[in-house]
Amino acid sequence: MSKHLKRRVTTCALGLTALMSQSAGATDKELLDILLANQKISKAQYDYLMDKEKMSEADKKELASSDVEVSLKKGLKIQTKDGDMKFQVGGRLHAQAAYNGDNTLGANDGTEIRRGRLFVKGVLFKDFNFKAQYDFADNKVGVKDLFVSYSGLDWFDITVGHQKQTYSLQLMMSSNDMPFVERSIDNAFAEALTDRAIGVRFDSEGDIWSVQTGFYGGSVGASDKSTDDEGWGYTARGILAPIHTENQLVHLGGAVAYRVPDDQADVGDSPVRFRSETTHMSNLYLVDTGEIEGVSNIVLASAEGAFVHGPFSLVGEYHHAFVNRDGNSDLDFNGWHVESTWSLTGESRAASYELKYGVLKYLKPAKSFSLKNGGIGAWELAARIAEIDLNDGPIDGGKELAFTGGINWYLNNNVRVMADYSKVLDLEGGKYDGNSAAEDLDIVELRTQLTF
Amino acid sequence: MSKHLKRRVTTCALGLTALMSQSAGATDKELLDILLANQKISKAQYDYLMDKEKMSEADKKELASSDVEVSLKKGLKIQTKDGDMKFQVGGRLHAQAAYNGDNTLGANDGTEIRRGRLFVKGVLFKDFNFKAQYDFADNKVGVKDLFVSYSGLDWFDITVGHQKQTYSLQLMMSSNDMPFVERSIDNAFAEALTDRAIGVRFDSEGDIWSVQTGFYGGSVGASDKSTDDEGWGYTARGILAPIHTENQLVHLGGAVAYRVPDDQADVGDSPVRFRSETTHMSNLYLVDTGEIEGVSNIVLASAEGAFVHGPFSLVGEYHHAFVNRDGNSDLDFNGWHVESTWSLTGESRAASYELKYGVLKYLKPAKSFSLKNGGIGAWELAARIAEIDLNDGPIDGGKELAFTGGINWYLNNNVRVMADYSKVLDLEGGKYDGNSAAEDLDIVELRTQLTF
Amino acid sequence: MSKHLKRRVTTCALGLTALMSQSAGATDKELLDILLANQKISKAQYDYLMDKEKMSEADKKELASSDVEVSLKKGLKIQTKDGDMKFQVGGRLHAQAAYNGDNTLGANDGTEIRRGRLFVKGVLFKDFNFKAQYDFADNKVGVKDLFVSYSGLDWFDITVGHQKQTYSLQLMMSSNDMPFVERSIDNAFAEALTDRAIGVRFDSEGDIWSVQTGFYGGSVGASDKSTDDEGWGYTARGILAPIHTENQLVHLGGAVAYRVPDDQADVGDSPVRFRSETTHMSNLYLVDTGEIEGVSNIVLASAEGAFVHGPFSLVGEYHHAFVNRDGNSDLDFNGWHVESTWSLTGESRAASYELKYGVLKYLKPAKSFSLKNGGIGAWELAARIAEIDLNDGPIDGGKELAFTGGINWYLNNNVRVMADYSKVLDLEGGKYDGNSAAEDLDIVELRTQLTF
Repeated sequence: MSKHLKRRVTTCALGLTALMSQSAGATDKELLDILLANQKISKAQYDYLMDKEKMSEADKKELASSDVEVSLKKGLKIQTKDGDMKFQVGGRLHAQAAYNGDNTLGANDGTEIRRGRLFVKGVLFKDFNFKAQYDFADNKVGVKDLFVSYSGLDWFDITVGHQKQTYSLQLMMSSNDMPFVERSIDNAFAEALTDRAIGVRFDSEGDIWSVQTGFYGGSVGASDKSTDDEGWGYTARGILAPIHTENQLVHLGGAVAYRVPDDQADVGDSPVRFRSETTHMSNLYLVDTGEIEGVSNIVLASAEGAFVHGPFSLVGEYHHAFVNRDGNSDLDFNGWHVESTWSLTGESRAASYELKYGVLKYLKPAKSFSLKNGGIGAWELAARIAEIDLNDGPIDGGKELAFTGGINWYLNNNVRVMADYSKVLDLEGGKYDGNSAAEDLDIVELRTQLTF
Repeated sequence: MSKHLKRRVTTCALGLTALMSQSAGATDKELLDILLANQKISKAQYDYLMDKEKMSEADKKELASSDVEVSLKKGLKIQTKDGDMKFQVGGRLHAQAAYNGDNTLGANDGTEIRRGRLFVKGVLFKDFNFKAQYDFADNKVGVKDLFVSYSGLDWFDITVGHQKQTYSLQLMMSSNDMPFVERSIDNAFAEALTDRAIGVRFDSEGDIWSVQTGFYGGSVGASDKSTDDEGWGYTARGILAPIHTENQLVHLGGAVAYRVPDDQADVGDSPVRFRSETTHMSNLYLVDTGEIEGVSNIVLASAEGAFVHGPFSLVGEYHHAFVNRDGNSDLDFNGWHVESTWSLTGESRAASYELKYGVLKYLKPAKSFSLKNGGIGAWELAARIAEIDLNDGPIDGGKELAFTGGINWYLNNNVRVMADYSKVLDLEGGKYDGNSAAEDLDIVELRTQLTF
Repeated sequence: MSKHLKRRVTTCALGLTALMSQSAGATDKELLDILLANQKISKAQYDYLMDKEKMSEADKKELASSDVEVSLKKGLKIQTKDGDMKFQVGGRLHAQAAYNGDNTLGANDGTEIRRGRLFVKGVLFKDFNFKAQYDFADNKVGVKDLFVSYSGLDWFDITVGHQKQTYSLQLMMSSNDMPFVERSIDNAFAEALTDRAIGVRFDSEGDIWSVQTGFYGGSVGASDKSTDDEGWGYTARGILAPIHTENQLVHLGGAVAYRVPDDQADVGDSPVRFRSETTHMSNLYLVDTGEIEGVSNIVLASAEGAFVHGPFSLVGEYHHAFVNRDGNSDLDFNGWHVESTWSLTGESRAASYELKYGVLKYLKPAKSFSLKNGGIGAWELAARIAEIDLNDGPIDGGKELAFTGGINWYLNNNVRVMADYSKVLDLEGGKYDGNSAAEDLDIVELRTQLTF
């Protein structure tokens, strides 16, 4: 009989309370059986000690030798063989250069680190997932994903923390995976209102459908101490994907978002602003509502569709924004885009479709680039047309129609090189209406992208 | 005879200096023995080469196959089997929501990422420990722990870098482990003067006692280039814990801190300010000394005690601040808090007591939450009463008495959900004396917490 | 015949395009052989499917059990046994204290975290390398290395992203490895113009030579949205190292840099400024050109040499800056430094020379510090003399001659303690000419350094 257990058994005599902070070693099971049989301990005490025994076994296993699996293909991933415990470190680098044709508009051209991120994510005890992702581009911190979720329920998963609000296919898709350097101009609505925020989200998924809905406060950094009370909102998005195989996809969806702006002590509700920058660093906004005052709430509604057949994909989305104001007239804005891609090397975007969040992901090259093996990676052509209309009532934000064509080289699952050419097709209203430099603007964007 | 060694032996003839950058392979030991026996090399040369041999063995072992142990229970921990080399990646997420009852006070309510941290820590060659921990909440960098320590001496450990100044049980306790969402109002003294700073610390520990003392400059970010000379200070804290078992604890301690403020070229000594915010993001300070000018130095003294019996704990602390001023009258402030917790599921906080730093840690649930196994985690009730008196002489900072009650759910060793209700019991003096909204303020705070 | 393959074989009949998104399991090789033999599929189809098969094998191997190697000696390093996949997490801590003798100059003294960095780096598929390194000192983000490189070509490596511009031995050397706490005063040129920037670099290396050249835009954070177009530049550096053994080194090099400043819409070209701070946090610049207006471009040229014989090293560098201006007179500035180190414990800096980038690295102690084994680490004396001349034409920036002496204790490959004493030997021109406090300034700097 181990000295450790002797002391514990003695303690048993002192009653259950004292017992509760003791623990039994695994080799002590027989002894506990005897003690129970001899009625030296109660069944409750026996169960409690056995429980502790199992836990202390688990604790020892915590540092058990390497019955773990390791992957080095995307950052570092280490997991137990049953997958119940997982830990991953990774990140992304988007190094870009941008050029806006005519300098008379004062667009800022040059190079930038568009995204420089690190993340840590993992699974704890099978049912708890977490992710902590931070961006450090422009020498600033951007809290991105920072949440913990629980997937132990049958009907839905719960996620708490800073996370994407589930509205819009385009916003839900990772910047690592999109076939264009920047999101389209109609993303102005989602960017302003339904980007990441602190809240609680519920996700549910069937064989051919998924639903995501959540209730959120503000974004990290969006509400500082000068405001009185933070704004809030909810979003819901539903997806139907009757066909989703390795090379075919039919995806239909719709989403709605409701948002109440921050409440500021001195000025009442925070102003709301929709606008679209020509490139991320240009500081040139061809359409811009300016700050819209007196907004009591905004409702966004969207419809989305995606169709993939082998190497061909067609994706589209429509947004409508209903801006409700107190005292002032209500406002209506809208926008849409349609994009298509063609994989020259034959890969299908259907293969990487993720139904749970209704998103298309990175185009995995059939054969990675390699001079020795003659692999050329995946080559993809992409074209997009998008429109946004920010003219309504007293608001003269402008209406823009724009085209983007791109070529993407996926060297392997980690490295991608992208080149986009964009052209403004039409400008109507807004600050730049009639400005020939703006109405005929050529934009070139280049990216080298690494995900690890 | 290996070609490599042949060259080295030739080099031996050239003298010791040249030798010193050579290295011997492990298989060469026999040869070195022969060379020594034949007096081709001196004993000093022999010893040196043998040393190098051992080192190069160690270097090979650097990438030896996995005789390491891995844990995925708290982030990622990898260590050699002897524990001499260790590396750990982890972090924390505190997602919170706060509500201050009456809006006439202008308190800012809403959600926030209270803490979003990543850390890397490790052990090198058994005796060197390091930790690098950064916070990224509010889209700002906060350098937290950033130090290296040496534990190879018999009598004490030395730590150099950015670290906690050892003053006050409450401040020394990790925010991951405290039974309340925020520290109590009397923490205003420690927060202003003895939070993390760059310095040298000495820690010593016996069977029932520990002492921590250090000498520090300023905090990262606290002194920018506009100041002339940084402030400095020292702290000392002593702990006596005559009883500390798995479910019983008697802890007594006292601490003192001395601090000289920054010296600013234009205004002389930096002003000193003590104040307490109702919630972290409220921007509402019910007690506030304002900037106290002409401070030559401040002495803080505290007494602390903790008593744990099974699931019950009682912890208290008293602080006194002596503010010494040149020309102006000296000032005296003080504060205290008493808190008690009761673990409904029976776990004892004594089990996680850490004598070295005299702190209570996370309440480890006897049985983690699991729908399958019927585990409910640990449930804890907590109550606290605290007072701070910032009225003295010409300073009318206010005196506040406040109550906090909370319920904490420890789902497992990583995830905790907390709900706190606080109420101001009395306000005397200060800006809000007689303000009925402030004197009857109800505060609710919620937190979802993850440590990985 | 597996169900999965059956479906695929059917698909084969539909033609190659549809095939391209399918994949074959490893156990299906026999079947493919039969199909090929029976002419059910073409050789091209067979090859394609076999390729996919190998890839899917590789994908399975992604989480194959631990045939990886682990090192814990410098942070965490995990790699496959063939070294084709590698992942590393690490960082650095430089905790410093600085004192500038005479306070009448208003120098800011005290402690600081000079550098607090984390990095992740790795190798993907043998030929792709990446590094993401961020600095968090002073509670600010500093994007450091953030690049991906390709080393699959015979003649040169290509690196894209934020990286060091290859100009100047001193700037190319890591702050972890330099024998002084700060770079010398003549580093003002390189610091202003050729520090890290976003660009494309080409590196080539032979047996006794190396060449690095690149084309760059601006640095992260250097060009914000207020500028119109970012500046750009190129650099080239060539190294000849006819002797580089374990304890001998002869290194000769030269570099040139060309830079065009940012183009600002309102003021034209951005002003250029060269200056040197006495210590990193002092805010005291004894020499300073102020903002030089109207600069169209700058050419920097440097010559460098290093000589190591056993424990003795001698390193020197000369810089010349040609500032070309529109309308105004052109300007000429120059600077140089010579430094020498002596390892008291006999280690040679030649052992850690890295030809690819032509840099000296950390002095690896022959025997790490250990009280038990009697190791004392490596002890090194260092002396440096440096001059910078910022007087030319209308610019009265000052000329400074300064001496620095230091002692460095390398406890092991991770921890180093440094003490430097610096003295201004001569000041001629500039703001502080004739200021006796400046002309006789004593500076002391201390550092505790950890790399992990």
